[in-house]
Amino acid sequence: MFSNNLTMMTDLYELTMMQGYFFEGNNDTVVFDVFYRKNPSGSAYAIACGLDQVIDYIKNLSFSYEDIDYLRGLGIFKEDFLSYLAGFHFSGDIYAIPEGSVVFPKEPLVKVIAPIMEAQLVETAILNIINHQSLIATKASRVDYAAGGGVMEFGLRRAQGPDAGTLGARAAVIGGCTGTSNVLAGELYGIPVQGTHAHSWIMSFPDELTAFRTYAKMYPDACILLVDTYDTLKSGVPHAIEVFKEMRDAGITSKLMGIRLDSGDIAYLSKKARKMLDDAGFTNAIISASSDLDEYLINSLKTQGCTVTSWGVGTNLITSSDNPAFGGVYKLAAIKKPGDKEFTAKIKISENPEKITNPGNKTIYRIYDKESSKIKADLICLVGETFDPSEDLKIFDPISTWKKSILPAGSYQIREMLVPIFLNGQCVYSSPTVMDIKAYCQQELNTLWDENRRLMNPQTVYVDLSQKLFDLKHKLLGDEK
Amino acid sequence: MFSNNLTMMTDLYELTMMQGYFFEGNNDTVVFDVFYRKNPSGSAYAIACGLDQVIDYIKNLSFSYEDIDYLRGLGIFKEDFLSYLAGFHFSGDIYAIPEGSVVFPKEPLVKVIAPIMEAQLVETAILNIINHQSLIATKASRVDYAAGGGVMEFGLRRAQGPDAGTLGARAAVIGGCTGTSNVLAGELYGIPVQGTHAHSWIMSFPDELTAFRTYAKMYPDACILLVDTYDTLKSGVPHAIEVFKEMRDAGITSKLMGIRLDSGDIAYLSKKARKMLDDAGFTNAIISASSDLDEYLINSLKTQGCTVTSWGVGTNLITSSDNPAFGGVYKLAAIKKPGDKEFTAKIKISENPEKITNPGNKTIYRIYDKESSKIKADLICLVGETFDPSEDLKIFDPISTWKKSILPAGSYQIREMLVPIFLNGQCVYSSPTVMDIKAYCQQELNTLWDENRRLMNPQTVYVDLSQKLFDLKHKLLGDEK
Repeated sequence: MFSNNLTMMTDLYELTMMQGYFFEGNNDTVVFDVFYRKNPSGSAYAIACGLDQVIDYIKNLSFSYEDIDYLRGLGIFKEDFLSYLAGFHFSGDIYAIPEGSVVFPKEPLVKVIAPIMEAQLVETAILNIINHQSLIATKASRVDYAAGGGVMEFGLRRAQGPDAGTLGARAAVIGGCTGTSNVLAGELYGIPVQGTHAHSWIMSFPDELTAFRTYAKMYPDACILLVDTYDTLKSGVPHAIEVFKEMRDAGITSKLMGIRLDSGDIAYLSKKARKMLDDAGFTNAIISASSDLDEYLINSLKTQGCTVTSWGVGTNLITSSDNPAFGGVYKLAAIKKPGDKEFTAKIKISENPEKITNPGNKTIYRIYDKESSKIKADLICLVGETFDPSEDLKIFDPISTWKKSILPAGSYQIREMLVPIFLNGQCVYSSPTVMDIKAYCQQELNTLWDENRRLMNPQTVYVDLSQKLFDLKHKLLGDEK
Repeated sequence: MFSNNLTMMTDLYELTMMQGYFFEGNNDTVVFDVFYRKNPSGSAYAIACGLDQVIDYIKNLSFSYEDIDYLRGLGIFKEDFLSYLAGFHFSGDIYAIPEGSVVFPKEPLVKVIAPIMEAQLVETAILNIINHQSLIATKASRVDYAAGGGVMEFGLRRAQGPDAGTLGARAAVIGGCTGTSNVLAGELYGIPVQGTHAHSWIMSFPDELTAFRTYAKMYPDACILLVDTYDTLKSGVPHAIEVFKEMRDAGITSKLMGIRLDSGDIAYLSKKARKMLDDAGFTNAIISASSDLDEYLINSLKTQGCTVTSWGVGTNLITSSDNPAFGGVYKLAAIKKPGDKEFTAKIKISENPEKITNPGNKTIYRIYDKESSKIKADLICLVGETFDPSEDLKIFDPISTWKKSILPAGSYQIREMLVPIFLNGQCVYSSPTVMDIKAYCQQELNTLWDENRRLMNPQTVYVDLSQKLFDLKHKLLGDEK
């Protein structure tokens, strides 16, 4: 619903803190990490998504005259600070893991290095965008995995607002869907749009057969008929077959024909319908289904021998209904005061060890098994650390430190995951098209082992700390070893 | 992220059906109802919300040249139909229940009466908007009920995209929140914005006391200090008290001062902190909390004697996490062919009796107990039916028809819930401000009985059918009585 200037879409406390820094004369450069603590929906991974919208957001950052006037009206900001805001632009650096990458807990998905006031302002919008799209892309990859392909995103009417439906469709296609019903998402992101007709189409005609016939005449090449308005097996499927026979008799060859089931016992109905279609010679006719589906229901239907090959998934995908929020957070990791050469690492301590942050200006190396190209582990390191794949590499679990592993020289490959997006306020990154991100995401998912992808109790992917980062962390915890 | 023209935000099948109607020459006028089948989160009611955005959507309906070009490129639309779309505007009628009203399952929240092509196009966006905001407003009313007031909406960073965070804040304030952290929502909707500072504020200073002191100097009149960065009871609360004492000694009187707890055992910590603040003479200092809260957790904390009076609720409210979709549907209820004087009622049959629609062009009367002004029942009727409160009124349960009740003449009052929003394509309704809708919503919630409002197993509100509608429905079901 909004313009692409989301500058004001921030928590009030970002602005009150900024004003505090402003009048304190705080010109520190800081490092903030966006990371999450737990994969959604019991998954062993997540899909990073939303970076292109973060780029748009940063590029468009500026307060309008009306914004300043509104802020003035709140009565909590002073004129000097409002003047500063009126001239605000982002001058810092941003690093990020490319969209479509598989990612794991604790890893900085986005890293902001900027003057403290700038870094503070952008917290909320970056989290909002990355949290939302990463959530939906991850869910889509799970649904697609269960279905073995052929998942269409059909959730616009149940999405949490226009953006959720439209950016959500973008994320769903990146994560694995073949297309979306959302025409706006198709137009904006160049992704396939799909869909046929509703029950109301059938009800607007005197009878089902006429409704089907009219539809087939209009759309012979994408003729998926919804068969459950009255009685699926006694009326819907026989009428669809009658229309398909008329098309065959008229010499019309269709690129895509078939039926859609939107209610009832999909396993039973799809098997019966498959037999009826096959017996009539329509072995190419596809059977699609759409009825409160998610990855678990699709998995169950497939184990029941359901013959559906095309899945329209709505509510449970577009809202990630079993886990509707991605818990990305934005935490201070380092500070460099004016005149300092190096960053001073910062740590947030918590009674819960899982909530203790990783300090310092960090990067991530991903270690692949050379033979299989699968992920062996990720290594969170301090910027500047390097590893030579022609040498043995010792990695260890940062919590259960006795769990050690040595990767022999030559057996592994290394890739740095964080890439520069903005440097000194200038965008240095060009986002691929959504369909290219989707293709890249598919490659990324192929770097996971089967055991990481299964729906229930998947094997965790190791995310280790480098020795140097581990030592720094424990030094800051006052736990010198 | 988008402009306020959401014309293209529709499911592809709306457009393919429209083209079908176009070439069939179908000029029928139709009635579509937006209704839902089940209240979210186990509630006995929902709050209707989002109408103002539906109005904007309808007013702005028009396809741009680029939209038409995009649709042409899909290769499924013919030029005559594209020309029709290029000149498209909405010419029909829309009735709706005002925003902020309490509503119940099966009731038309929005009723569209329009040429079939127009009515079909607007399905998806209307559902998207109403489903989203009604969901969040309902959730907010539950959280506010549990808290007994003082709930702030803090969910922007976990919302499902920018709209979800911003329109969601609007809905949350309508449903019961006192304000939001989202500055954009404050600017757009004139709702209070709230917030203080984050852990990073504390961490950016050499020590907690300096961070608190600096904040208090800057914001003496809204001085809520976050006390859990290091150690709540040993460091945070004592430092806050030290700063409050300094303010007192300097003769500074604060409009609002207190602390915020964002982690740990809120029940325990709040009781300890209350005592420490009281012992230091700061009985007016408030204690706020924000830590994965929802209505159940707040209720539990209150039964434990927790001293929090101000609640920052994020993720679970802004996503309605236990029930992240409002199941509103859009169903054909009647058709009037050109030349017909009356609508012909339509019914959608289902094996599941709950899914059978109510046919015809309908309205809703709400029946209030005259003495208490509480809701006795809602009556879904056919348009044109009237009831005279000076006569006895017999109502009955439409499923368990033996459950009858007679309301004596003079004991009840009647109000029609659906009001005209658009007539012949012209908007005839002026939306109240969001704060006025919020005040109206509070009145609406007061028309529920306590038994309807409780969080667990609330008493259902009766939604009956008029005898005339009941008879029509059963006639169409072939079940003449």
